[in-house]
Amino acid sequence: MILPIFFMLSFLLSSSSCNALDFCVADLKTPQGLAGYSCKKLELVTVDDFVFSGLHAGNTSNLIKAAVTPAFTAQFPGVNGLGISIARLDLAVGGVVPMHTHPGSSVIIVVIQGIIDAGFVSSANKVYFKTLKTGDIMIFPQGLLHFQINAGTTPALAYVSFSSPSPGVQILDFALFGNDLPSNIIEETTFLDDAQVKKLKGVLGGTG
Amino acid sequence: MILPIFFMLSFLLSSSSCNALDFCVADLKTPQGLAGYSCKKLELVTVDDFVFSGLHAGNTSNLIKAAVTPAFTAQFPGVNGLGISIARLDLAVGGVVPMHTHPGSSVIIVVIQGIIDAGFVSSANKVYFKTLKTGDIMIFPQGLLHFQINAGTTPALAYVSFSSPSPGVQILDFALFGNDLPSNIIEETTFLDDAQVKKLKGVLGGTG
Amino acid sequence: MILPIFFMLSFLLSSSSCNALDFCVADLKTPQGLAGYSCKKLELVTVDDFVFSGLHAGNTSNLIKAAVTPAFTAQFPGVNGLGISIARLDLAVGGVVPMHTHPGSSVIIVVIQGIIDAGFVSSANKVYFKTLKTGDIMIFPQGLLHFQINAGTTPALAYVSFSSPSPGVQILDFALFGNDLPSNIIEETTFLDDAQVKKLKGVLGGTG
Amino acid sequence: MILPIFFMLSFLLSSSSCNALDFCVADLKTPQGLAGYSCKKLELVTVDDFVFSGLHAGNTSNLIKAAVTPAFTAQFPGVNGLGISIARLDLAVGGVVPMHTHPGSSVIIVVIQGIIDAGFVSSANKVYFKTLKTGDIMIFPQGLLHFQINAGTTPALAYVSFSSPSPGVQILDFALFGNDLPSNIIEETTFLDDAQVKKLKGVLGGTG
Amino acid sequence: MILPIFFMLSFLLSSSSCNALDFCVADLKTPQGLAGYSCKKLELVTVDDFVFSGLHAGNTSNLIKAAVTPAFTAQFPGVNGLGISIARLDLAVGGVVPMHTHPGSSVIIVVIQGIIDAGFVSSANKVYFKTLKTGDIMIFPQGLLHFQINAGTTPALAYVSFSSPSPGVQILDFALFGNDLPSNIIEETTFLDDAQVKKLKGVLGGTG
Amino acid sequence: MILPIFFMLSFLLSSSSCNALDFCVADLKTPQGLAGYSCKKLELVTVDDFVFSGLHAGNTSNLIKAAVTPAFTAQFPGVNGLGISIARLDLAVGGVVPMHTHPGSSVIIVVIQGIIDAGFVSSANKVYFKTLKTGDIMIFPQGLLHFQINAGTTPALAYVSFSSPSPGVQILDFALFGNDLPSNIIEETTFLDDAQVKKLKGVLGGTG
Repeated sequence: MILPIFFMLSFLLSSSSCNALDFCVADLKTPQGLAGYSCKKLELVTVDDFVFSGLHAGNTSNLIKAAVTPAFTAQFPGVNGLGISIARLDLAVGGVVPMHTHPGSSVIIVVIQGIIDAGFVSSANKVYFKTLKTGDIMIFPQGLLHFQINAGTTPALAYVSFSSPSPGVQILDFALFGNDLPSNIIEETTFLDDAQVKKLKGVLGGTG
Repeated sequence: MILPIFFMLSFLLSSSSCNALDFCVADLKTPQGLAGYSCKKLELVTVDDFVFSGLHAGNTSNLIKAAVTPAFTAQFPGVNGLGISIARLDLAVGGVVPMHTHPGSSVIIVVIQGIIDAGFVSSANKVYFKTLKTGDIMIFPQGLLHFQINAGTTPALAYVSFSSPSPGVQILDFALFGNDLPSNIIEETTFLDDAQVKKLKGVLGGTG
Repeated sequence: MILPIFFMLSFLLSSSSCNALDFCVADLKTPQGLAGYSCKKLELVTVDDFVFSGLHAGNTSNLIKAAVTPAFTAQFPGVNGLGISIARLDLAVGGVVPMHTHPGSSVIIVVIQGIIDAGFVSSANKVYFKTLKTGDIMIFPQGLLHFQINAGTTPALAYVSFSSPSPGVQILDFALFGNDLPSNIIEETTFLDDAQVKKLKGVLGGTG
Repeated sequence: MILPIFFMLSFLLSSSSCNALDFCVADLKTPQGLAGYSCKKLELVTVDDFVFSGLHAGNTSNLIKAAVTPAFTAQFPGVNGLGISIARLDLAVGGVVPMHTHPGSSVIIVVIQGIIDAGFVSSANKVYFKTLKTGDIMIFPQGLLHFQINAGTTPALAYVSFSSPSPGVQILDFALFGNDLPSNIIEETTFLDDAQVKKLKGVLGGTG
Repeated sequence: MILPIFFMLSFLLSSSSCNALDFCVADLKTPQGLAGYSCKKLELVTVDDFVFSGLHAGNTSNLIKAAVTPAFTAQFPGVNGLGISIARLDLAVGGVVPMHTHPGSSVIIVVIQGIIDAGFVSSANKVYFKTLKTGDIMIFPQGLLHFQINAGTTPALAYVSFSSPSPGVQILDFALFGNDLPSNIIEETTFLDDAQVKKLKGVLGGTG
Repeated sequence: MILPIFFMLSFLLSSSSCNALDFCVADLKTPQGLAGYSCKKLELVTVDDFVFSGLHAGNTSNLIKAAVTPAFTAQFPGVNGLGISIARLDLAVGGVVPMHTHPGSSVIIVVIQGIIDAGFVSSANKVYFKTLKTGDIMIFPQGLLHFQINAGTTPALAYVSFSSPSPGVQILDFALFGNDLPSNIIEETTFLDDAQVKKLKGVLGGTG
């Protein structure tokens, strides 16, 4: 008497779920499409596709004394298509995340340790800037210039959540000074002085 | 004099339509992506990709006296990407579609024959429950627990439309008792008694 | 001992659900926005907002021997925002649903009684046309010209599901001949003869 | 002292950007999916994927004295997935773009040279019709019948922007008279006279 | 010489940004619509709309020894429309977040302190279950049943990010036993025993 | 005999179209929501809501010798909700559109007169830069830094189409130097020299 229900429900489940997408763990070897990657075969998916243990403390022994450790689709294929991802942010004393944008993602930061100065600039050119204490959160709307600075005397730790599984990041200085964009074009379009442009190209590896 | 317009319009049509997606009949052999399957080549598509004759009366000779016959992307590839699908629901006298959710789809039921008790529970924990007569329709919003019961003395027939071409279904009893979720975990997270959990695991094939 | 869990869960539910949108029953008195209407206050919502009993047999005593009875947001506010709606189609013997499009919705028809000739034309100018028997379904992709004709010797009944809660409909003849679009413009843009245009304007109430 | 920041930022950039989709230049050799094509490998993408020089003056030596030159995904793969495309419209004196729809795209026309009569018909059957002068723009909402006619005594030139990278186009006359849709079906569903239908089938290559 | 550029850019900014939506801080007094709330007037928006300091430690002195403190649109109007929100989860020793779903949101948990057993069940009825250590993250796909349990001997703390600014939550036990859903309906649709249903209705305040 | 069809179709049209959204001309006096403005009442809508004649030549007598004249929702309410808008760009000899982003819109430029140097920088830090001749088009993907410069010896004219009806614009120099963002914060997050920051604040009206 039990088997029929089992059979009936199993049939229903298998017939419908075989192409229902509860999730779509990225098969990073497939060509990437507009909506992300193709899905890993369901029979190969395990719980380890949904758990990530790689958000270790980053190495902040660098000039900006900061490290961002991402769990985006490339590192954590389980988030593919699910509209969310996360990263760990370590800021040593004096650490800075330079001015940047995420072209297709909003961001929430939650401060776990330390004190962080954070802000963004709206397209109406207004600055929204505040000192965040441990436990505070801040939202940075999609596509706007923003930054974070360790404002305290101890290392700061934060987690940063994104409204996209693969948020791009455009760091202003690198976009301007870390490639072959000709200096005269930079100067014409930013009003920066030639000496300033060339100095930062020197620092950031730019040519032209 | 006729050929030029023919030529001109044909050119316009062919140049633009060659990658315009009026539709995207699923090629079920391609890897599934987040937005469904890749498209069957247009030259292979026929009217039979858009017509489905398989919504036969289901076999309700089972414990729940119910059968759901789907026309989702897996059965009816023509709906791929079009935001809609349909299924046939047969409920023998005493038949029940157990408590379940569709994680990514709203549902409209239309009662063709018989009388059906149907309801859903909102996330504010309120029950919306009513007896549907032949010709009545009811909407079940996305992701909420709902059920249908034959409330009459004759078999009931309904069609169920989904706002997704591949709606998943999570049947509560199978999710809890039809797999290897450890009994102690079920008990801690549902407050059900151990005896109850083990009894239903026995019925539904669960282990652990 | 029971109250704490009750309190805790109630708090969680009320704090989160107070602006979570399980559904958004249309308040038809509010101004309509791009995404539909504003929501009826939750405390005023009852199960009757989610059930509709108005899909009665339509009156087919008209020239086209057809009647469409909709359950769109205007008639059935519970579907507002849920991506789906439904209508009843009655076709007397000889009945026809004339050539039309839905600018923002795909459609599935399920034939409940009778036999229906149905078809659509793709933007690649190909006709997908078939005789549907009772129990058959057909999908009409968004925005394409399509039609249904009673192909049998008895009345036909069908339900038509839409991938939008408020699908528009543009009936070709009314768009061309049922308004004040100047005859010479119609003729230039459709290549129809002046006599034909004026004859149908006479039938359908067009001027100019 | 410079290298650490270089290293740190490069690491951040490469780890995040390796699957962030700033853009997705269509690889037209991949199977097309619902959301467009798969992406050309980033290392193969050059500025020439984002620039298109093929919007030359069209040949209007045809019966309708009109030519549409598209820059859709098929011609200009750089727009794949970016929600926008463009075409050039040339209308000789007396030129006409016949009544048509775009099933999944709204359109803005900007008149560069000449005078154009343009209009669309809403699903409420109302005509929105106006003479556009050089420099004027008009929006045609998604999925509605519309047309353009050279209303002046000189050639007209316009650019037409679409809210889709691959807008389909359904030209009414071709959909009705340029395929094998049986004449009796056309007549039943459009109320056109048999002689009219057969005359236009003759012109446009229709059969049946 | 400076004023012209200032004037020109200001004009450009003001003309375009006056209705560009960088963000839309919820005006919670407006009627809620499908896409959230109407926007607070831009001149009233301050940085405090984007910062939230209310994620305090929750009170876990309740039966489940757990507390969820949300920063959803209702508490943190700055996230309105930005596709993301966050909550704080406190689990005392022995604490449990009971089996629940979020009908329209995926979730990422990051464990800040302690050890948490977490899992979800797919619509294919498979359990994905793992013990998360401090620093681990886990993704729970939209709409699927899931749970968290403090698996350690110390209190656990986690932050939970959602892919929606207003994620609903449906807690299984409350949906079944905390309202007026008739016991016989529960029993028919869940196969639970009458005694079990009545016992939990007693605990959770259900009637009928 | 004619009236019945007229009646039947009118009924169908009126019942369905009364809340079908072919379009939603913005009522700019309503509060703005996430998806744009509420709709102007249909009976008040005329063809003039869909036509805009205000894209006049801009005044380029300013320091950057450039003018952008928008037809966004604020100027042209007919585009509200239709996913597209347009602007006119005038560049005198030597004219420059400074480095900027559109946080939520891709852009296509079509050059009508003159020669324009245009480019964008990807989040992978690569420059895509080219000289556009009259008739050329270029696509700038959403959210990325880009610019245009008159590269010729005559005035240049272009039209710029956006994949949003209300594209925001964030002009880099104004975001950095045209508000009260403290100089030390700018310097820490951009690596610019203090003298450079203060010089441009002087030019662009910044304080702090």
